[in-house]
Amino acid sequence: MIELVSSWRCFDGEQRVYKHDSKATGTPMEFAVFLPRRALNGEECPTLMYLSGLTCTWENMVSKGGSQRTAAELGMIIVSPDTSPRGEDVADDEAWDMGKSAGFYLNATQEPWAKHYRMEEYITQELPEILEEHFPVDLSALGVTGHSMGGHGALTLAMKNPGLFKSVSAFAPIVNPMNCPWGEKAFSGYLGSDRSTWASYDACELVKARGWKGRILIDQGTADSVLEVQLKPWAFEKACREEGVDLTLRMQGGYDHLYYFVATFLPDHIAWHYDELV
Amino acid sequence: MIELVSSWRCFDGEQRVYKHDSKATGTPMEFAVFLPRRALNGEECPTLMYLSGLTCTWENMVSKGGSQRTAAELGMIIVSPDTSPRGEDVADDEAWDMGKSAGFYLNATQEPWAKHYRMEEYITQELPEILEEHFPVDLSALGVTGHSMGGHGALTLAMKNPGLFKSVSAFAPIVNPMNCPWGEKAFSGYLGSDRSTWASYDACELVKARGWKGRILIDQGTADSVLEVQLKPWAFEKACREEGVDLTLRMQGGYDHLYYFVATFLPDHIAWHYDELV
Repeated sequence: MIELVSSWRCFDGEQRVYKHDSKATGTPMEFAVFLPRRALNGEECPTLMYLSGLTCTWENMVSKGGSQRTAAELGMIIVSPDTSPRGEDVADDEAWDMGKSAGFYLNATQEPWAKHYRMEEYITQELPEILEEHFPVDLSALGVTGHSMGGHGALTLAMKNPGLFKSVSAFAPIVNPMNCPWGEKAFSGYLGSDRSTWASYDACELVKARGWKGRILIDQGTADSVLEVQLKPWAFEKACREEGVDLTLRMQGGYDHLYYFVATFLPDHIAWHYDELV
Repeated sequence: MIELVSSWRCFDGEQRVYKHDSKATGTPMEFAVFLPRRALNGEECPTLMYLSGLTCTWENMVSKGGSQRTAAELGMIIVSPDTSPRGEDVADDEAWDMGKSAGFYLNATQEPWAKHYRMEEYITQELPEILEEHFPVDLSALGVTGHSMGGHGALTLAMKNPGLFKSVSAFAPIVNPMNCPWGEKAFSGYLGSDRSTWASYDACELVKARGWKGRILIDQGTADSVLEVQLKPWAFEKACREEGVDLTLRMQGGYDHLYYFVATFLPDHIAWHYDELV
């Protein structure tokens, strides 16, 4: 059961928002989906999942990313999940980089997080089933991208689920959360102090352990204020190079971490995923 | 003196926000300007002014309209003023359709509005001078568009200032404010009860009195909740037809009044203005 919350016609398709009770998180969850005209006509379409960053919901990219224009041109579905479970009985933290809006796309094992913070299961199991049941999503042509924490989610969940995600890219991703303040705080809280459990959520470790069969595209702004402390994409570039993984890392001069940066390169990414998927 | 408030690199250009003390309104005013790369290189560029609607600031279109992509492709400057004077000593109304964010692009004559609500003077005199002084704006290639109340502003200010604005279009404009609740309320407050003073701010009356030398483009969604009570574009269509003015009114099936509608057709409008101006 999914319930339609909003629907706006947009670029001859429809931008919709749905709500449903999630088994994975044990909470109501919202997600947004852009359906191009051919999807509204019932044709199966290649689909891109976009995972948002800290402080975001489904709405940031949907309202500010301009994704619908390119998706409509190419006939792609874009799916935008929320970044954490929500609700009064969901554990939270006063800081903006932990708890609500900061689920880090993992299954928490520690209290008070373990009950609801199961975003990995939600994104990789429950949501794809919902998409297949309710929309003309071609699950054999599903890609994933994301921004910042969502870039971390895209890279790690793709490498852990190569049968599900056929293409992966990222915007200013957290590539090595085991070695940055945001990641160390989140993983300590959600996964506990045993760092051996962290590696399965770290893109740099995963590319060494599992590799990636296809190409990877990453855009990163050079004027990004968290580039050197939190993001450090060079660690992932080095790991991919050493493992023979075909990464294109574009250090984009003068761009920051915000949505004017994402909006600038999102058309490229959508077209890139289309080429990988179709 | 204008002060840079924000600047974000975007589509190889820069999206900026400036603040200045306005002589017209007697208040600080903010406006946004997108400078494509060739403007950053000092080349004069055709320029489009976008006037926003009720409840908006410069930010709504700038963050949600996707204008920068098309403007960057064509090398156009986009200028986005605020919708009213702001500040603690500026008269306001509890309602969202009067006072702050609802300046209606006119010069108020009635108290308590007359002192600061001089958006017509601001948009048509002060702001063009600022643009010419500080940016490579080609004032001989200046167009204007707008949404809802801003569509009213675009149509009326263009027809009253054909030497300033060389092209005009609108999204879901208020075309006949003398005969709709939003307009009657605003004009009664800002201009007083003598309706003969209202005609110079009514697009339907202005097209009869002054005509328009060029083409006009209007997009209007058929699922717009205020279409029949506030907007009634057929009145303007009839007036243009009778006056021999070359209006294209596109009734867009299924679109509403919000920014997913504006974002869908803004690329068309920017390209259309470019063709009119260059």
